[in-house]
Amino acid sequence: MKTYSNHQLQRYPIYLNYLRELFDSGSEYVSSPQIAEKLGYSEEQVRKDLANVSHESGRPKKGRSVRQLIRDLEIFLGYRGSSPAVLIGCGRLGRALLNYPAFESMGLEIKAGFDVDPELVGKTIEGKRIYPMSELGRVIREKKVMIAIVAVPVDYAQEVVNLIASAGAKAIWNFAPTLIDVPEGVVVENVDLASSLAVLNHRLNRMLESSHPRID
Amino acid sequence: MKTYSNHQLQRYPIYLNYLRELFDSGSEYVSSPQIAEKLGYSEEQVRKDLANVSHESGRPKKGRSVRQLIRDLEIFLGYRGSSPAVLIGCGRLGRALLNYPAFESMGLEIKAGFDVDPELVGKTIEGKRIYPMSELGRVIREKKVMIAIVAVPVDYAQEVVNLIASAGAKAIWNFAPTLIDVPEGVVVENVDLASSLAVLNHRLNRMLESSHPRID
Repeated sequence: MKTYSNHQLQRYPIYLNYLRELFDSGSEYVSSPQIAEKLGYSEEQVRKDLANVSHESGRPKKGRSVRQLIRDLEIFLGYRGSSPAVLIGCGRLGRALLNYPAFESMGLEIKAGFDVDPELVGKTIEGKRIYPMSELGRVIREKKVMIAIVAVPVDYAQEVVNLIASAGAKAIWNFAPTLIDVPEGVVVENVDLASSLAVLNHRLNRMLESSHPRID
Repeated sequence: MKTYSNHQLQRYPIYLNYLRELFDSGSEYVSSPQIAEKLGYSEEQVRKDLANVSHESGRPKKGRSVRQLIRDLEIFLGYRGSSPAVLIGCGRLGRALLNYPAFESMGLEIKAGFDVDPELVGKTIEGKRIYPMSELGRVIREKKVMIAIVAVPVDYAQEVVNLIASAGAKAIWNFAPTLIDVPEGVVVENVDLASSLAVLNHRLNRMLESSHPRID
């Protein structure tokens, strides 16, 4: 299996988004230069990226089939299958994630929520049953869950991750704003809002400085 | 002003997180090799990154002052000031963001929410007043808002971004899972959960393949 850098992988959902928009607006064919121009990538880059995931090389003058490209990208990204997942931590952020409509189109299916709060345990929130942490292992095994989404406060994140790993899930999608250690055989991806905000702040300040240059 | 790549910028909140943990656990000094080992970066990288934001070069044997590094990183990342912001779209995700506790420590202060839903407008959610979209320009001007957080459904995202730009905000933090166009003089940063999940799926599949190699 070819290994992709994060940077490379992050472009694929963006291609997919754009192609779905094209499809919805009735376009049947698209060219690499057209994709490159719209997304701000080089043509070379677009051709390379798409060659990695699709045998659809397109017809001269017409371009590539939008429908075929969408299909190939969905398969590559694992959106065609269904990935059973659980969500740990049903506070505000957790509840937003429990029923985030876009997850469905990404093949992510949250089977159950988990929380330590006795007020929440046993309830059904956003159509999903909330279990106590003691049931984590059983639910992961029974529902063949691979992915655990962590949306607990920072102070509990590592402890919860240890529980998840020993319960047998193989992938952790971490929304707690902290670094976590995972044992071998478990992969982790952090959704780091702090980093994202840092990037935005930096761009904003650079833009403001360039529009009002300081006179030294 | 020095320009940093996204990749570079994204490391700074991670340094800050780790240093805050050290500080909380009572450590007064830290060395570059120690940081490098904990975070998995090269020592060279850590030294370069920290030299960009801090004059604190440390004392031989003792290392750098944790407190001073935290201060310098917070200033660099804009966490020391206060960034007034508004949030557009007070659905599930929007409400999670309205009172996300970590924003406070990043200097982000959400002043108000906006929504089109007449059921929400006029209410106070998570301590923040929800206004109709028609008040966007006035609130942005009066509260000197620079940052608008977009948490609306995909189909409304571009329309809302156009409103924000004409109302005078300069930075858009986009949580809608779609690409948006912004006019010159406005910066944008996307929080793209689809890309993040693609990275996780890819790592998971690679790990599963390597632990159960196919026999061809």
